[in-house]
Amino acid sequence: MILYSYWRSTTSYRVRAALNLKGLSYTQRPVDLVAGEQRTDAYTALNPGQGVPALELDDGTVLTQSLSILDYLDATYPEPPLLPSDPLLRARVLAAAHTVALDIHPVNNLRVVAHLKTAHNANQDQAQDWMRHWMAEGFSALEALLPDRATFAFTDTPGLADLCIVAQCYNAHRWGLPLTPYPKTARIEAACLATPAIKAAAPEAQPDAS
Amino acid sequence: MILYSYWRSTTSYRVRAALNLKGLSYTQRPVDLVAGEQRTDAYTALNPGQGVPALELDDGTVLTQSLSILDYLDATYPEPPLLPSDPLLRARVLAAAHTVALDIHPVNNLRVVAHLKTAHNANQDQAQDWMRHWMAEGFSALEALLPDRATFAFTDTPGLADLCIVAQCYNAHRWGLPLTPYPKTARIEAACLATPAIKAAAPEAQPDAS
Repeated sequence: MILYSYWRSTTSYRVRAALNLKGLSYTQRPVDLVAGEQRTDAYTALNPGQGVPALELDDGTVLTQSLSILDYLDATYPEPPLLPSDPLLRARVLAAAHTVALDIHPVNNLRVVAHLKTAHNANQDQAQDWMRHWMAEGFSALEALLPDRATFAFTDTPGLADLCIVAQCYNAHRWGLPLTPYPKTARIEAACLATPAIKAAAPEAQPDAS
Repeated sequence: MILYSYWRSTTSYRVRAALNLKGLSYTQRPVDLVAGEQRTDAYTALNPGQGVPALELDDGTVLTQSLSILDYLDATYPEPPLLPSDPLLRARVLAAAHTVALDIHPVNNLRVVAHLKTAHNANQDQAQDWMRHWMAEGFSALEALLPDRATFAFTDTPGLADLCIVAQCYNAHRWGLPLTPYPKTARIEAACLATPAIKAAAPEAQPDAS
């Protein structure tokens, strides 16, 4: 499999971590989002959404959207599972994952922040305020959704919510949002980074890191 | 079941449509987002994310995040299914659904647009430009992900992608984005609105519509 990704993309981080947890081998093909490689004709033909990650399967089929790719990997390579089988617990894990993946990440996406700068004249400080604002709102909601005691978000093994959380925490550090008001989130990040398969998926460990 | 919702919320629209398609009865409890009812202590205790929809089950358990609620409903009340069982087709349906539910909706959410106005002094015209910009980008990507021939997005029965699409089309009309450049999206909207269970979930048919 070929993973089109970018080292600092948190959605790429989620998928790398899942591939590693499931013991799947893949070739990483970096797409330089800052240089605009995602908008080339060649990449747009591959992923019309012009984002990363995209996963090319061995038969050439290309999957897009990180949560959709994770769902496919979990259906096709079930061990270890990213989601529990009980529908109610599964819904709770998904709600926590989606609080990051829908309420925080899309609003702080590179293209959204770039548009905020060009169309609304936001400077870099204002752009960082924007990102910290949505992270703070989302992490507050997340804390209330998480149980008090567990190693990872809900269980003793890492799953979908954990992968979304650890990747978002990378952005929190990058943009200067302290995690001290969010102790459960911080605990989950620490548990994830102590897991070699997840640590190996972190941005700084990628071939295109600079 | 009690559905906390708002008539114009597109994420509420998705869940109402799914409940109707599956023939489930529910009581709708409106949360007036414009009046700020989602930020009251009582509602925040119910849904820490301060959004709609939230679904309260008969035992008092509250589920949040529309895609998580839809996943729970599909697992618990499998007929008719919102997602196909084949992992690859399922990934394609999810990618289309997520192009709406992640790339468009969160960025155009009421609270994001409100923050754009207060923190970045955007006027109403600029706010509408913002919304149309992300809908145009997302619908363009969506057209490239959809097959040429089907009644609904991928099959002859409505599923997750269709529910996300028909609800987003409501917002496109509301904010003045013509669907003519997006013929597949427009075809799917028409097929959905010709389906009584979905039509009954549309904003104008809700008790809190004004």
